Amino acid sequence: MQLSNVKVAIRHATLSSSKSPPLLLTLGEPAGIGPDCVLLAFQAHPELFQGLIIAAPIHWLSERAEQLGIQMNFHVCHSLEATVPHGHLGCWNPLPPDMPSLPVTTGTSSSATAAAVITCIELAARACMSGDAVALITAPIEKAVLRDSGFDFPGHTEFLASLSGKQRVVMMLASDQLRVALLTTHMPLKDVAGVLNSANILNDLKITHHDLKHLFGIATPRLALCGLNPHAGEQQHFGDEEMSILTPAIEQAQQEGMLIDGPLPADTLFSPNVRCHYDAIVCCYHDQGLIPIKTLSFGDAVNITLGLPFIRTSVDHGTAMDRAGSGKVSYSSMMEAINMARQMSQHTLHEVTYAD
Amino acid sequence: MQLSNVKVAIRHATLSSSKSPPLLLTLGEPAGIGPDCVLLAFQAHPELFQGLIIAAPIHWLSERAEQLGIQMNFHVCHSLEATVPHGHLGCWNPLPPDMPSLPVTTGTSSSATAAAVITCIELAARACMSGDAVALITAPIEKAVLRDSGFDFPGHTEFLASLSGKQRVVMMLASDQLRVALLTTHMPLKDVAGVLNSANILNDLKITHHDLKHLFGIATPRLALCGLNPHAGEQQHFGDEEMSILTPAIEQAQQEGMLIDGPLPADTLFSPNVRCHYDAIVCCYHDQGLIPIKTLSFGDAVNITLGLPFIRTSVDHGTAMDRAGSGKVSYSSMMEAINMARQMSQHTLHEVTYAD
Repeated sequence: MQLSNVKVAIRHATLSSSKSPPLLLTLGEPAGIGPDCVLLAFQAHPELFQGLIIAAPIHWLSERAEQLGIQMNFHVCHSLEATVPHGHLGCWNPLPPDMPSLPVTTGTSSSATAAAVITCIELAARACMSGDAVALITAPIEKAVLRDSGFDFPGHTEFLASLSGKQRVVMMLASDQLRVALLTTHMPLKDVAGVLNSANILNDLKITHHDLKHLFGIATPRLALCGLNPHAGEQQHFGDEEMSILTPAIEQAQQEGMLIDGPLPADTLFSPNVRCHYDAIVCCYHDQGLIPIKTLSFGDAVNITLGLPFIRTSVDHGTAMDRAGSGKVSYSSMMEAINMARQMSQHTLHEVTYAD
Repeated sequence: MQLSNVKVAIRHATLSSSKSPPLLLTLGEPAGIGPDCVLLAFQAHPELFQGLIIAAPIHWLSERAEQLGIQMNFHVCHSLEATVPHGHLGCWNPLPPDMPSLPVTTGTSSSATAAAVITCIELAARACMSGDAVALITAPIEKAVLRDSGFDFPGHTEFLASLSGKQRVVMMLASDQLRVALLTTHMPLKDVAGVLNSANILNDLKITHHDLKHLFGIATPRLALCGLNPHAGEQQHFGDEEMSILTPAIEQAQQEGMLIDGPLPADTLFSPNVRCHYDAIVCCYHDQGLIPIKTLSFGDAVNITLGLPFIRTSVDHGTAMDRAGSGKVSYSSMMEAINMARQMSQHTLHEVTYAD
């Protein structure tokens, strides 16, 4: 597994100061810990923010900085071509002039800012799609508040897929020890078996394989697919989806030239001596993938959406409203999300196109 | 978390040589790696086998020892009261004289030995129930072969529950980093939501709490219960079993004095900073519990059946038929299973009684 080496290399790379399009970062719920993570990370590692611009009204950050007692320099960017002076945090407000970005009460989400939150994400994504930005990094949203305001998506991932006209994207979580990709995400566990089908699985395997190659720079990705049932069904004694749904997708993927093993029993697949053989492990449902990666990580896993026409990474935590403004938050996942987006943008050698 | 300390203490304890009833160990599938694990563990750590007797025909071990080129001394025990000489591996053949224990071909399971395998387990369990032995340690069985021979149980756990007249037992996996207990075990994933009910969950929580107290010596066990659905249902957006089934069981358990948190999102519950707060994490289904413990372990987790009227531990691996007789097997889980059974037997201060 070459993950650690790649990570170290990126961390020590001399960041380019050429005027390639910037990375964009959205704050998500402005009353949550998104602004804290950005400010604390910038304070500790300003070099990480070179070539990166925050897509948000500046007061969502400046007021939080004041609350945290952080002295720092902001630079207002009127376009994404702006040059951010050294030591400054660049902010670009994507909101149209007629959209009020109402005040934020730290720790208390409000439907009054919901439309602005969604618009920031949408316009940042559109900037990525138009080529004005190279990647999108997102801080967590408060889903319940957005839903009540008419946001009809389970989360960022589905919203961004919709914006870019993609019927299927793949949620990946990556850390320095493991990468997992999910065939299903936010749905009741009892519905998972019913929505799996071979055609979609094959499509998701192709997306995962393609992006590992072109965004992660892995020449020959090695994949494994988890069984759905205990012991991968144990010869159909504990379920038959392995035989009827998963195996046909794997066989087709193998015929198309992918290196993929499975369906394999999920419990042993993540043990240290087994997971090391794979560049990514594809999982049938949310917790099958998120449990092992979060078991191993101390909050440094990154959420990546594969299959979009642009690069998107995210922190792996929520809004943690109760800790917003306290200064007591870990910004390690934010740093990893920025690192990962930059790393992926440097591997974008080919246009990302899928047949969906 | 006091797990590591307990383990170290046990490993360095001076083992008693008094004539208390022995620990019993069954070989499971004699053509698999069960005999290898026993022989290699004995060769490396004979002190581990003090006060322990193998419940099997001696030739299932002696022939494998010859195959592996291991020189060792066996002692044939005609009863469980026998004294095993120092440096000898004690063997007690529980099979009745009229039951042939047919020859074993290493690496090839056979229906010819199936009845003998089952009888060894049954009579060893009965010895535990009668007080002639203090704990049962089991090596893995080849379930498919036993099933074809009329063994109508998914595995050891259900067989031992049936033998002891228990309607519900709880499968626990324990390592030095984590303990997980399962509400359901070997069934298709799609059926899990349908079989969960508050009464059974409450019962399983009581069993887990009771055995942590009386077999593990934890005065005030702290439990957590995983949600079934992603994000524990996220306010019923992704499933309602948390509200309708899990929460009522937790509230009742709390009213009865147990320290238990939940239902909590399963993905974050196993992260290092969260799992350290609990003596055991109770999981809704097989992979929810086995994935995190095997993600962390290098084959040293122990399978424990809670709620039986006797102590039972097992290795956490299968028969690995292809490696039987090769000498290339890890016996660490076997050593942990023996250690754990001994540790638990030393905490058996109270009779184990449940109201089922």
